[in-house]
Amino acid sequence: MTKHIRIVTPHTTPRPTKLDELIGLDVEASITFSHVGLTAGPKSVESVYDEALAAPYVVERCIEAERDGVDAVIVDCMGDPGVDAARDMVAIPVLGPGETSMHVASMLGHRYGVVTISDRVRPIFEKHARVHGTYENLACVRSVDISVLAIAHEHDRLVEALIEQSTAAITNDKADVILLGCTGFLGISEKLKEGLERRGFIVPVINPLRTTAMIAYAMVSVGLAHRFNERESS
Amino acid sequence: MTKHIRIVTPHTTPRPTKLDELIGLDVEASITFSHVGLTAGPKSVESVYDEALAAPYVVERCIEAERDGVDAVIVDCMGDPGVDAARDMVAIPVLGPGETSMHVASMLGHRYGVVTISDRVRPIFEKHARVHGTYENLACVRSVDISVLAIAHEHDRLVEALIEQSTAAITNDKADVILLGCTGFLGISEKLKEGLERRGFIVPVINPLRTTAMIAYAMVSVGLAHRFNERESS
Amino acid sequence: MTKHIRIVTPHTTPRPTKLDELIGLDVEASITFSHVGLTAGPKSVESVYDEALAAPYVVERCIEAERDGVDAVIVDCMGDPGVDAARDMVAIPVLGPGETSMHVASMLGHRYGVVTISDRVRPIFEKHARVHGTYENLACVRSVDISVLAIAHEHDRLVEALIEQSTAAITNDKADVILLGCTGFLGISEKLKEGLERRGFIVPVINPLRTTAMIAYAMVSVGLAHRFNERESS
Amino acid sequence: MTKHIRIVTPHTTPRPTKLDELIGLDVEASITFSHVGLTAGPKSVESVYDEALAAPYVVERCIEAERDGVDAVIVDCMGDPGVDAARDMVAIPVLGPGETSMHVASMLGHRYGVVTISDRVRPIFEKHARVHGTYENLACVRSVDISVLAIAHEHDRLVEALIEQSTAAITNDKADVILLGCTGFLGISEKLKEGLERRGFIVPVINPLRTTAMIAYAMVSVGLAHRFNERESS
Amino acid sequence: MTKHIRIVTPHTTPRPTKLDELIGLDVEASITFSHVGLTAGPKSVESVYDEALAAPYVVERCIEAERDGVDAVIVDCMGDPGVDAARDMVAIPVLGPGETSMHVASMLGHRYGVVTISDRVRPIFEKHARVHGTYENLACVRSVDISVLAIAHEHDRLVEALIEQSTAAITNDKADVILLGCTGFLGISEKLKEGLERRGFIVPVINPLRTTAMIAYAMVSVGLAHRFNERESS
Amino acid sequence: MTKHIRIVTPHTTPRPTKLDELIGLDVEASITFSHVGLTAGPKSVESVYDEALAAPYVVERCIEAERDGVDAVIVDCMGDPGVDAARDMVAIPVLGPGETSMHVASMLGHRYGVVTISDRVRPIFEKHARVHGTYENLACVRSVDISVLAIAHEHDRLVEALIEQSTAAITNDKADVILLGCTGFLGISEKLKEGLERRGFIVPVINPLRTTAMIAYAMVSVGLAHRFNERESS
Repeated sequence: MTKHIRIVTPHTTPRPTKLDELIGLDVEASITFSHVGLTAGPKSVESVYDEALAAPYVVERCIEAERDGVDAVIVDCMGDPGVDAARDMVAIPVLGPGETSMHVASMLGHRYGVVTISDRVRPIFEKHARVHGTYENLACVRSVDISVLAIAHEHDRLVEALIEQSTAAITNDKADVILLGCTGFLGISEKLKEGLERRGFIVPVINPLRTTAMIAYAMVSVGLAHRFNERESS
Repeated sequence: MTKHIRIVTPHTTPRPTKLDELIGLDVEASITFSHVGLTAGPKSVESVYDEALAAPYVVERCIEAERDGVDAVIVDCMGDPGVDAARDMVAIPVLGPGETSMHVASMLGHRYGVVTISDRVRPIFEKHARVHGTYENLACVRSVDISVLAIAHEHDRLVEALIEQSTAAITNDKADVILLGCTGFLGISEKLKEGLERRGFIVPVINPLRTTAMIAYAMVSVGLAHRFNERESS
Repeated sequence: MTKHIRIVTPHTTPRPTKLDELIGLDVEASITFSHVGLTAGPKSVESVYDEALAAPYVVERCIEAERDGVDAVIVDCMGDPGVDAARDMVAIPVLGPGETSMHVASMLGHRYGVVTISDRVRPIFEKHARVHGTYENLACVRSVDISVLAIAHEHDRLVEALIEQSTAAITNDKADVILLGCTGFLGISEKLKEGLERRGFIVPVINPLRTTAMIAYAMVSVGLAHRFNERESS
Repeated sequence: MTKHIRIVTPHTTPRPTKLDELIGLDVEASITFSHVGLTAGPKSVESVYDEALAAPYVVERCIEAERDGVDAVIVDCMGDPGVDAARDMVAIPVLGPGETSMHVASMLGHRYGVVTISDRVRPIFEKHARVHGTYENLACVRSVDISVLAIAHEHDRLVEALIEQSTAAITNDKADVILLGCTGFLGISEKLKEGLERRGFIVPVINPLRTTAMIAYAMVSVGLAHRFNERESS
Repeated sequence: MTKHIRIVTPHTTPRPTKLDELIGLDVEASITFSHVGLTAGPKSVESVYDEALAAPYVVERCIEAERDGVDAVIVDCMGDPGVDAARDMVAIPVLGPGETSMHVASMLGHRYGVVTISDRVRPIFEKHARVHGTYENLACVRSVDISVLAIAHEHDRLVEALIEQSTAAITNDKADVILLGCTGFLGISEKLKEGLERRGFIVPVINPLRTTAMIAYAMVSVGLAHRFNERESS
Repeated sequence: MTKHIRIVTPHTTPRPTKLDELIGLDVEASITFSHVGLTAGPKSVESVYDEALAAPYVVERCIEAERDGVDAVIVDCMGDPGVDAARDMVAIPVLGPGETSMHVASMLGHRYGVVTISDRVRPIFEKHARVHGTYENLACVRSVDISVLAIAHEHDRLVEALIEQSTAAITNDKADVILLGCTGFLGISEKLKEGLERRGFIVPVINPLRTTAMIAYAMVSVGLAHRFNERESS
């Protein structure tokens, strides 16, 4: 039976091509993907404050998804905003790519390196790792030094910078798995993987959204969901 | 010079007597305490979802406090809702009684036991302890088994139940410090301490709000504030 | 495109009905499951020594599987015998239900309890948890006190005993996820889940083989495999 | 009511200007500071051996302080010599700037860097962090490479060297809080903070003695003291 | 060549029969054991304060031992008073039975349980375990509830009580190694081991002094000593 | 009484001069050393797969040793292949130089650095450290970049490279103990120690085989052996 997985992008700026990141997976397994953003909340998620602004609306989207008969929800941001809160409100699985990818990274190697956009989000990854238990496996969190503006217009430069940082993660920090630390940029992970291979580094490169989508599918298929804290009616 | 510390209670239900919990401290040091609640957000905080609902409004209150010339803000809930987010938005210290009390507890003994209302909040304390680094010192999180309704009307029964759980924390879990795991009930910690002394247990009992208020005062006095992540203007 | 996942049971005693444990998953996604045992090695796996006896033959089976064009291999034992060694020899994903289930358990709740057959395997789980990073999430490893002989003939008694131990894990050790700590007994996890529900405990119960099968499928679908240590040719 | 806090400098060499480090705090809150050194013990504290020599006399000073009606004692050395022992002998709070500052540092940021005089004391900080639970937050312990003699005569060179090491802690080790790892040099922390600001680094710089003084005041104000192990009379 | 190992008992009360605890070992290997107490310091070691009182005199004894051509020193107390300090002052190995036995216990099993006289020393063991890295292996620290006076006169009752606590450590806390948590009582460990065997528990029981003596001998034989911090001459 | 300790080299390639590494120790104490290799299994141990191939034969050798009246067995490889399995099958102590040396290293300093041949074995040391509890003490695992072929013919170049890496471990990674991470090369540790001393670094350099031999002797002398899991007869 086809499973329905919904991607909730936790900000108001539309991301019309988001589902392209999942191309092929729906055919692969019998999955229908749907995608929604927020009608209220932050324009983008660049700080812990943006995560706080987004969380209540993310939970609304999760409740809506459960009502729509969706089988699982993925919150489309490495900070997993609203994921814990949503798990108090719905019985279907709600997955965050941050928590999920870090566990998958731990299954694939001994030490994983996160490469992301800004050093300002490093503490978010470190907190995730401490809470979820993969801190000893976290080799490093490295960032490219590119302005958000530049990124928009200089896709190739971003990829080059990510290859640079991933190379440093592998050679300096002994990472043997690379986790792309952002779900906001599309079509990056493959190019990163190829770039590393050109340099002779054959390591897994985790595309957080694709990976989380399939882990969600796996959980749904075996009937697993997080512990559901039905909220006490006041 | 008098310092101004503001207590932000992260829900909409008024708590007119909240500042009574701080009686004497203002005289003690030269502190002015002010207290605000939320005009929007949850009625009370009983789940991670309520914390998510409260966080954005808590941050607003912190920004308002900084504008008002307040020296430090304390978010009046052990879950510290909005504290991390607020630290991205204001330069004055924003303290949560959860994080703060757990560090103080670690300074006072070898293992601290948390006694609180419902087992549903246990994971919140465990996550705090992992992120903030006091997990090895956390002896236990124990809860009284009393309905919220009963608590309202049966103050003495609540105190007795907390004494029971604290006794178990000391004798079974080897706690040598007791942390009252809730800021919502007033005038409890002294009675808990006395009750334990009547049973022959002379241990520190931490009143989270009073303690956090004075730690905030200490930080302000020496000019310390958290690392301020000025938010990038979009 | 259909994926081919092979289950390698690491002992010589045939388990003709093993694939029944995966019923439905092949239809669910487009997966073909195949199953092999060992032609040499231990009769069963009841100790670390049995794991050592099995490991070299497990690796052979993994090499064979890669040659057969299999997409991923699952070693059918919670001790994951030969998994690390196989990852040095093949490029396709080789998953162990021990490592995999413990990560999944960590994604589903705050603390997971393992219920298994004999206390003699407890250290194996504790070592897994330390190496793979979920030790802080491991609430307990509890065993039923039933002779292997009895188990064979008294299926219901085994289920009852597992329900007993799971109940203790939830109430005493605060586990909010139950992991069935053995892949050798079939058709147990559903009955365990139902038994716990009859007692009013609605918690995820992880069937390690089913769950690992779908996590393997997820990894194959997104093109992820462990870091491959091509062995230096001597 | 005015609180009386006593600083115990754990060596015999007089430090007549020590209380200058606390200037303003007494006015700030209603505190009286007193200061004593040792009449016997080490000339200075430069090793674990010096700490051992100092400890018994520190405890004597704490007992004396309690007899004098002092409200709290601070042992004026980052190694906290005698602090644990004193807590067995007196009921008033005895604080060490090492333990206290490391907890405060953890409250202020995600990772703190210690900058100190000699690499020989690094293990002392690492042990503190492990025992007190902030090891994961300890970004680094960095030392200036200046002879004790030089320091005495070249105050500015010391400050410059500390700025150098703090800069490395921030940029290389990702520290977002700087802890001055020595209570023996006066009037340094402000200059260090200013020097870092001139380089564009706005981070909290912890003056251990000032900070510990106010944390002690906070504890006294709320009636908290460590668990008191009344010593069994033989 | 015969090695000379000296036992330093860190208090002033004579223990004339102490070397009986090492009977046979000298013949076993070519070792000469010598034994000294303190001429000044505490009468006995029952608290952290006693440890502080003893430490400086212990270091003196270690310096004296090195001058006497002794090959290694063992400080005869589980709290290892003065061991760290002595390592700054002498180049010969100085071992503490606390640190040493906990490492040996970790080599012998998965979880070790400490059984000792008074619960007041539990934190000392917990701190050792955190600093030395065996905290995850520490199953429990259990104490007998017998007055020091009673112990002196009721040897058998002490043994019985230790058997009780060891049994609880094995069955409740899953310890598979028992560490006798006191060097002050002689001829106990063998009786404890026998008592446990009578109850059907075949586990290693560590006699801390005997074990530390032979580990010291091992280190001397292979020419290993701790990192020697030659103290800077002032 | 003379003790008999057997070295089991876990591969089929003869190592006729292996016992030279233990010269002097037999005289030192009354020990008889014997040495055996494998008749089947890997030619050498260069990967986790080789360890898996070796383990069953190592256990056979341990069973044989116990039958021969040997007092303790040492598996001659830092990966400790078969050690855990052997402990299920024999009652005499079976020691691995990996586990043993890492505990000894932790007793000798604050942070130890491993210097070994190939970066491919780094994860093996990291896993050991996590399981055995010395992970926080592990400063680094550094490798020389020399082909196995070169090593055979260029002994001096190997020593030089190990001195280079040890120097980096001490200066960059703050290691104060060096552990030679390989038992396969003979007569290295002394030269490494001398080379470091020539550079002014006086640190303990652990020869894993010699050290493990004497720790085994210590355990035998005091009658200690690991917890013996007598295998259930099927």
